[in-house]
Amino acid sequence: MKSFTIADINAVINGVILGNTSNEITAPEQLEKATKHNISFIGNRKYAKLWPLSKASVAVIDEKIEIQPGDNRALIKVKCADLAMAQILEFFNPGNPILEDEIHPSAVVHATAILGKNVQIGANVYIGKNVSIGDGTIIYPNVTVMDDSVIGMACVIWSGTVIRERTQIGHQCIFHTNVSIGADGFGFRPSPDGRGLVKIPQIGNVVIGNGVEIGANSCVDRGKFSSTIIGDGTKIDNLVQIGHNSVLGRSCIMAGHSGLAGSVTLGDGVIIGGSASIKDHTTLHSGVTVGAGSGVMGDVQAGKTVLGYPACDSRDMLKQWVALRKLGKGA
Amino acid sequence: MKSFTIADINAVINGVILGNTSNEITAPEQLEKATKHNISFIGNRKYAKLWPLSKASVAVIDEKIEIQPGDNRALIKVKCADLAMAQILEFFNPGNPILEDEIHPSAVVHATAILGKNVQIGANVYIGKNVSIGDGTIIYPNVTVMDDSVIGMACVIWSGTVIRERTQIGHQCIFHTNVSIGADGFGFRPSPDGRGLVKIPQIGNVVIGNGVEIGANSCVDRGKFSSTIIGDGTKIDNLVQIGHNSVLGRSCIMAGHSGLAGSVTLGDGVIIGGSASIKDHTTLHSGVTVGAGSGVMGDVQAGKTVLGYPACDSRDMLKQWVALRKLGKGA
Amino acid sequence: MKSFTIADINAVINGVILGNTSNEITAPEQLEKATKHNISFIGNRKYAKLWPLSKASVAVIDEKIEIQPGDNRALIKVKCADLAMAQILEFFNPGNPILEDEIHPSAVVHATAILGKNVQIGANVYIGKNVSIGDGTIIYPNVTVMDDSVIGMACVIWSGTVIRERTQIGHQCIFHTNVSIGADGFGFRPSPDGRGLVKIPQIGNVVIGNGVEIGANSCVDRGKFSSTIIGDGTKIDNLVQIGHNSVLGRSCIMAGHSGLAGSVTLGDGVIIGGSASIKDHTTLHSGVTVGAGSGVMGDVQAGKTVLGYPACDSRDMLKQWVALRKLGKGA
Repeated sequence: MKSFTIADINAVINGVILGNTSNEITAPEQLEKATKHNISFIGNRKYAKLWPLSKASVAVIDEKIEIQPGDNRALIKVKCADLAMAQILEFFNPGNPILEDEIHPSAVVHATAILGKNVQIGANVYIGKNVSIGDGTIIYPNVTVMDDSVIGMACVIWSGTVIRERTQIGHQCIFHTNVSIGADGFGFRPSPDGRGLVKIPQIGNVVIGNGVEIGANSCVDRGKFSSTIIGDGTKIDNLVQIGHNSVLGRSCIMAGHSGLAGSVTLGDGVIIGGSASIKDHTTLHSGVTVGAGSGVMGDVQAGKTVLGYPACDSRDMLKQWVALRKLGKGA
Repeated sequence: MKSFTIADINAVINGVILGNTSNEITAPEQLEKATKHNISFIGNRKYAKLWPLSKASVAVIDEKIEIQPGDNRALIKVKCADLAMAQILEFFNPGNPILEDEIHPSAVVHATAILGKNVQIGANVYIGKNVSIGDGTIIYPNVTVMDDSVIGMACVIWSGTVIRERTQIGHQCIFHTNVSIGADGFGFRPSPDGRGLVKIPQIGNVVIGNGVEIGANSCVDRGKFSSTIIGDGTKIDNLVQIGHNSVLGRSCIMAGHSGLAGSVTLGDGVIIGGSASIKDHTTLHSGVTVGAGSGVMGDVQAGKTVLGYPACDSRDMLKQWVALRKLGKGA
Repeated sequence: MKSFTIADINAVINGVILGNTSNEITAPEQLEKATKHNISFIGNRKYAKLWPLSKASVAVIDEKIEIQPGDNRALIKVKCADLAMAQILEFFNPGNPILEDEIHPSAVVHATAILGKNVQIGANVYIGKNVSIGDGTIIYPNVTVMDDSVIGMACVIWSGTVIRERTQIGHQCIFHTNVSIGADGFGFRPSPDGRGLVKIPQIGNVVIGNGVEIGANSCVDRGKFSSTIIGDGTKIDNLVQIGHNSVLGRSCIMAGHSGLAGSVTLGDGVIIGGSASIKDHTTLHSGVTVGAGSGVMGDVQAGKTVLGYPACDSRDMLKQWVALRKLGKGA
């Protein structure tokens, strides 16, 4: 574990130092759990009262908060505590696990696969026919990449993830553990005798842009035909479902357990809260926000915030909730 | 990529051709994204206006829609556009990835396992003791099948899926990526001192019929004792939870993120919408439909449609929603 | 399959035998599906009427229920049918699959890993640098454990599970199939130009106590910094999401599809129903119960039961539901 002086750290965030400390700092930690070798964060007045009780030797603090550093302790005042925290996390980042082999001997890589420079492939990985992997991409153990898929440069594919055939992935994407990309869409039609279900072939694929992050155990189904598409810079949390032929714009956010039923269109910058789900064949235009737990059953105009089940304009839903609470008290 | 004439394609769907085109067709594509080598679909009058703007050379079209093909373009009129689409998808289906080995040398197959004819087992698969796999079943890389499980004929088990011990699976089933079959049911009892929880052994298994499809990252828990059962032809979407000792009938549908809490009984042909969940020990009789996002807390009679949280008859719930909306406006 | 006399079985549960049977018992089974070689359970008067119709030769029965055993059949009366059932399931438990090798030759175990006594590691497992695994822990095929993680004694890690770097796990834990431990938390900040999202490094870890069980395809994200913590004896069902920096106390229960958004604190003995989700940065104090399907948007005092979306005191929510139902009928 490396250790740093307060001066080393302030060289990264360029704040104003109050007080001083001779203690070396080895890691960031929460105020309540910190030791004298930790740096902590006070972005908000309500946490300021924890400072005198904390053992942290240093805290990064919003410049508007007025507290005293104390004995052999220091505060670094910054304009934006969130940005400074991100910089400090980057500074202390121990980095991802390093694989020792370029291609682990236990990996099964088809002879026709094309690997860029500095690609690393972990133990027990399977890479199918005609797969192409760009420079600097790292594939951790126990990943499966099927035939004719393309993965761009500088991607990180974590263990347990499966990428089905003909998927196209851009650069600098991160897929967390046990992700499923390109499984068949959920499409059936009644059997001729009306008593059963017949599978509709799902012959499309998944196309993912640059800088996309997909959380653990999330699923992106392939198109029935054509493609399921995720735009550049979109971030998907854990256990999210993206149905076949959905099209997501740039820089969207989908929180944990949320889902798009199929053929859903999201504009750019759409934010979908945790556990919210969106009906099939609906469009949420750019800048829409969907509150956590909502069930969206129709199109939503650009920039609107919707909430509730069934979802409507969030202010209207809050009024409904207030009215219902009153009604319950009267009952 | 193979290419076909309009006559080749019409031999599959037996429609009536209007106009003609000399362009060869290589794939189906949506109207908006089509090139001259694509065939597209117009099943609905509202999409008819996209035809003049599309570059597709051919569209399959519902026979009731009256539009003109245009220059060097053709329409194929059919009675049922959905069926024709399914036939065309099958026609253009490139098929699943082909494994080159019968059993990949890196697969670990126990000496006591019994493999039928034309079984294929991919790289890094694990097959435990006394497992039996029927003719023509394909197991893709990185699958785990534990002791004493039986998999029928012509099944497809996609990568990352784990099948726990003593599972019984019928014929022509498809399990998508990262599925969990036969994990322990969720059962605990208070410890004697009342301060903790003691695990109740889960010694049953999972029994799955013929023609069952289970979506990516879905879970079917084993019975506490006896079995969790999924009937013939039932189709399960992604990220679905089926609790221990649930019994599903024939040709049921469970959409993404839906769940059965445990000891739930579904009749035949029950349809459960996305993100809906069903309380433990309830019965949904044959033909029940549960709307998306619903929380069902009691038994539902055959053929009923329920909706909402808590769920009730869907017409009643729609009235409640209307009333609440009015109430909110008055507040 | 072993078989037992009624005397063998009663030696385990110490009940009072009514009637007798010469049939040997090989397994527990439900009343409706039992054969003469089965033992069944009647914990509740409503199931008593199934006894005369059942073929089971023995049933364990709550001592308050008055029924007659019948010809060559026996009832074992006990004070607590649930406890007796757990004891009988343990008695008939066939146990987990047995691995034949200490370390399967196809497993990749880094030279620096420290393995305790009687550790077993299955086929195609990956164990990274400096991983430590305690005595008697079993790791089933196709598991991935990354660098610097510590797993305690007598744990069972089922196939497909991935444990990311620097995770700390106590003793006697069970992780079911396809679990994701330690994936990055979901944290981003706006890019300097305001048009995109920049990843906030997630450099913390996950710390899990003793006796914790985590269900199939569930996810526990690593801390942004510091740790995501799960207390001793807590039980997590399938497809559950635990966001970064959440802290769970002792003996909590989270049912299927439930989720903690991030920086959520649970006291001891908190019970969260299926599909319920908890807003980020909230605290649910000890003994709180959250009803299935609820959306909790604020702190909850110790011992309270909350319900609904948005969740409030359960009695208030039940009143709201009653009022809304009336209102719907009036509409």
